[in-house]
Amino acid sequence: MPYVEFNLTKGATTEQKAQLVEGVTDLLVKILDKNPSSTQVVIKEIEPDSWGISGRSVKKLRAEGKTANISKG
Amino acid sequence: MPYVEFNLTKGATTEQKAQLVEGVTDLLVKILDKNPSSTQVVIKEIEPDSWGISGRSVKKLRAEGKTANISKG
Amino acid sequence: MPYVEFNLTKGATTEQKAQLVEGVTDLLVKILDKNPSSTQVVIKEIEPDSWGISGRSVKKLRAEGKTANISKG
Amino acid sequence: MPYVEFNLTKGATTEQKAQLVEGVTDLLVKILDKNPSSTQVVIKEIEPDSWGISGRSVKKLRAEGKTANISKG
Amino acid sequence: MPYVEFNLTKGATTEQKAQLVEGVTDLLVKILDKNPSSTQVVIKEIEPDSWGISGRSVKKLRAEGKTANISKG
Amino acid sequence: MPYVEFNLTKGATTEQKAQLVEGVTDLLVKILDKNPSSTQVVIKEIEPDSWGISGRSVKKLRAEGKTANISKG
Repeated sequence: MPYVEFNLTKGATTEQKAQLVEGVTDLLVKILDKNPSSTQVVIKEIEPDSWGISGRSVKKLRAEGKTANISKG
Repeated sequence: MPYVEFNLTKGATTEQKAQLVEGVTDLLVKILDKNPSSTQVVIKEIEPDSWGISGRSVKKLRAEGKTANISKG
Repeated sequence: MPYVEFNLTKGATTEQKAQLVEGVTDLLVKILDKNPSSTQVVIKEIEPDSWGISGRSVKKLRAEGKTANISKG
Repeated sequence: MPYVEFNLTKGATTEQKAQLVEGVTDLLVKILDKNPSSTQVVIKEIEPDSWGISGRSVKKLRAEGKTANISKG
Repeated sequence: MPYVEFNLTKGATTEQKAQLVEGVTDLLVKILDKNPSSTQVVIKEIEPDSWGISGRSVKKLRAEGKTANISKG
Repeated sequence: MPYVEFNLTKGATTEQKAQLVEGVTDLLVKILDKNPSSTQVVIKEIEPDSWGISGRSVKKLRAEGKTANISKG
């Protein structure tokens, strides 16, 4: 039954998303013996100006070159 | 007060979304006597390569013709 | 594939929750031809002091008898 | 650690979103002494035909001029 | 229409939660001219062993005294 | 920045939850080069009568011994 939701800033490729789906499903099978056929994974991609950390948008943090320490990725 | 969130793969029409909103609001009124004016419904539509089931993306499952059994819709 | 999340204040019975699950699954089958076996529904129940509307908690609104108009249920 | 998710109908500007991020982070610092560097804020924008209130979509309510009372914004 | 969801580790008082509800509703009114009567706020409180950061649970980080820098609050 | 939310039926131990947090953080580092210090993971545990699949609650499916095929875990 698990339902997993990833919230990420935009930019993952279709292949990377497929790897995330496969990887997290494997984790749920191995750690909790979940049934993969009822394990659902959703990836939500967010624009950098709609994600904030430390009170500032990721868009601004990236423009200032601060993403390496604070919010890489 | 209820807040209902639907997560669906893309493809519903405006009319189908209106039917979902009306239908689920009716359910909350009939089953739980909720006040429709404070019942909110949000529909989030997800790309097929951002939704996984059985460890694989819906995009791949559909390409393989497996959606009838595993993930129709 | 649909995943539906209900957020409600506490108080629904097991039977009422079962009716919600059945009702919203039926809606998704009828309106969007979704496969019930991959339709998941989760009901999250919230304490009245953790839900706010009009800038005030439902707990306070109920104590003041304002729930009939503003936030019944 | 806080994670805050805003769900809004579409239309906020980048500047307004930055104000929301800053404002809600300040609230968490002042009220709960949270660490801003681990406070994350995500803003999800929803199309008017994907948001319902009172059993009807915001798109319809706006077309009928009912948004002032029921669902302004 | 806005719906705001706070995810926090457990420990906020009823009064602190009321301040959060009031504060974030005020922000939405001031910044985006939203209608408070249709602004809903939900606070979800999470156990420290169910919240992870830096790949480790907040429960462990706190036991090691690392919460001041990494995940205060 | 990633924020990952697991929704599971109740029953995971503290150790299993720690493994999930570690495992999914590793995935985000390896696949998307995310910064672990800003990767947050929340695990939400749901009662079996609040989770539905195939239009029926997991509580009922388990009582009927149907969980092996439909909703193990």
